[in-house]
Amino acid sequence: MIYFDHAASSYPKPEQVAFAMHEAVTSYSANPGRGGHKLAEQAGNVIEQARKKIATLFHAPSKKHVWFYQNATMALNQAILGFPFQEGDHVVATMFEHNSIIRPLEKLVLEKGISITYVEPNEEGIIDVRQFEDAHTEKTRMVAISHASNVTGAVVSIKDVGKFAKKEEIVVLLDASQTAGTIPIDMESDGIDLLAFAGHKSLLGPQGTGVLLSKGDYNLSPLVVGGTGSQSELLHQPQSWPNRYEAGTLNTPGIAGLAAGIDAVIEMGIEAIWEHEKELMDHFIKGLAGISGVTSYGPSDLSKRVAVIPFEIEGIASHEAAMILDEHYQIAVRAGMHCAPKTHETLQTSENGLVRVSFGPYNTIKEVDTLLEAIEEIRQAFL
Amino acid sequence: MIYFDHAASSYPKPEQVAFAMHEAVTSYSANPGRGGHKLAEQAGNVIEQARKKIATLFHAPSKKHVWFYQNATMALNQAILGFPFQEGDHVVATMFEHNSIIRPLEKLVLEKGISITYVEPNEEGIIDVRQFEDAHTEKTRMVAISHASNVTGAVVSIKDVGKFAKKEEIVVLLDASQTAGTIPIDMESDGIDLLAFAGHKSLLGPQGTGVLLSKGDYNLSPLVVGGTGSQSELLHQPQSWPNRYEAGTLNTPGIAGLAAGIDAVIEMGIEAIWEHEKELMDHFIKGLAGISGVTSYGPSDLSKRVAVIPFEIEGIASHEAAMILDEHYQIAVRAGMHCAPKTHETLQTSENGLVRVSFGPYNTIKEVDTLLEAIEEIRQAFL
Repeated sequence: MIYFDHAASSYPKPEQVAFAMHEAVTSYSANPGRGGHKLAEQAGNVIEQARKKIATLFHAPSKKHVWFYQNATMALNQAILGFPFQEGDHVVATMFEHNSIIRPLEKLVLEKGISITYVEPNEEGIIDVRQFEDAHTEKTRMVAISHASNVTGAVVSIKDVGKFAKKEEIVVLLDASQTAGTIPIDMESDGIDLLAFAGHKSLLGPQGTGVLLSKGDYNLSPLVVGGTGSQSELLHQPQSWPNRYEAGTLNTPGIAGLAAGIDAVIEMGIEAIWEHEKELMDHFIKGLAGISGVTSYGPSDLSKRVAVIPFEIEGIASHEAAMILDEHYQIAVRAGMHCAPKTHETLQTSENGLVRVSFGPYNTIKEVDTLLEAIEEIRQAFL
Repeated sequence: MIYFDHAASSYPKPEQVAFAMHEAVTSYSANPGRGGHKLAEQAGNVIEQARKKIATLFHAPSKKHVWFYQNATMALNQAILGFPFQEGDHVVATMFEHNSIIRPLEKLVLEKGISITYVEPNEEGIIDVRQFEDAHTEKTRMVAISHASNVTGAVVSIKDVGKFAKKEEIVVLLDASQTAGTIPIDMESDGIDLLAFAGHKSLLGPQGTGVLLSKGDYNLSPLVVGGTGSQSELLHQPQSWPNRYEAGTLNTPGIAGLAAGIDAVIEMGIEAIWEHEKELMDHFIKGLAGISGVTSYGPSDLSKRVAVIPFEIEGIASHEAAMILDEHYQIAVRAGMHCAPKTHETLQTSENGLVRVSFGPYNTIKEVDTLLEAIEEIRQAFL
């Protein structure tokens, strides 16, 4: 099988991911930080080590600024629904947002009376800092954006946005689910206040892991409250970090697996992974251009996108094309809306959706060629 | 090592738990229900099978009534913070609640103006249905209680509470984190409306899993919103279950592991597990009674408790005793407040906390004897 659905979840994982999880379950499945014994301590230490690794990789102030969740959606909900918005506050997002940003924001439109501007990409399919400058008002409290579109791969220049936002005292929430592990991210120098991402995509960890990093104290209200294993006498969530934002037992095996995935990414090198994926993307886009009746979308400047390439084959619905690729060619891709309805509005592809191909570090040029041949054959068969 | 901290997290897990997780990560780590290809379908199927297994085990109406979360705390927060409480509504809980029930309820006291009555146990350490009857008012909308105390092991007779609550049209939210897998639970005949539990305790699954089952539609507002892989065109969370209550990517390896844990529980038999743990508990409590200067807490009627036994050794702080047991005897127990501050208020043990021993299906009488000898020695050493 050829797997080109890394933007949804990476596969395969490095061997050490499953190994680390197996070890967590078989050797120290006690409750992390909740016991007075060695096994609980061991579980707690594995989590603290993972926290430290993540703080270092993304340049967060310390490990207590790293909070673990079930997925990036939960991390984004904590950042957005927990933010101290007031009625009339304004947020700038983009037409490229995933529902994990759109839906919490729209919930606040109804519940708190905030307003949102979704900025459009320019003709190149890129969202430029000028569009954020134009969209912001004196009521803008937050820029909440995906680092890269999960449909077109278009990357926002976060450094520029961060600089603008700092000047205007606007908090930057970045969803790096499509870039963490593929593009180097530095919270400090990129001007990111809140950074959320999934562990199971380019960081090569398992599902069940999402992370929120908070550079400063934005007075977030905890979304979930409960046992913290500390200051149990308080009727309310304690102030100390990370406990304040992590109620209940953490996913020790998942976090151990994520740490192992990150180790593998660091070993390969984030920039080397990006170069490799760009090469595959370049090869694929050039190949697609040679097949008549096939249209691909996304920025033509490959330095401004990650290896996520949507396309359509004239006369074939995206779901049908994906099904044929899966069943006839054993090639896994994703079809449809990809949880990003506004992106398809912008691309005018809402009716049929698009076939999305996304590459990972272990994919090869040969696999891309196989896909190109398959698309060519499908196109011929449907002529 | 002897492990007696099952109330925090069970250890060891059945072999097939780690095996199922390993398989999920190595063989089908695609995004469940989010792709148009076989691997995503396989992941989706594993989750749907787990849902079905859980619905059957607890007599929920169907698998769509089973919702997965990171932990029981999150499941309880979804049930409590998502419930359509109005100002002035009243909730009955007990002095035995864990912070995972206390803290969300107290949050609603501040934010929505609800009120709470925490009922006290009787002299036997049991909370009887009459106490719920006495505590309820015409404004009572919910009874939110732990099935068994995580400190004293005392079990609430849920069938009686369910019958009373049904008559009064009060919704019953049960936290079965200490009983699911140890005591048979039937949502239908026990009169439970909302059932929450952790996967990593007596169900022998991994950390990172919690479940909420909803018998009917209580008009819960989703706590977390975002991508659902379905109806992506909607700006708000879709109505369909379970999607409405499960935003973002699920923890496929964790859920696969939980299903394997449940299989092991079913194979051993929940009632057989309970009998075994009661035997260990009986032996331990009788043994403790023979050591002077040691006091144990909890109901004397063993049919009204699970195998969680707190005790104190005169003159030794609970954390110190636990540390000695761990370091000198390689026996893992838990000391302190156990995230249940009101329980210690009731027992008048808030200052020093208690040492808590909790048994699992793989523990033996011989291990209990080793613990009793250790306690005897510690007691002698501190005389």
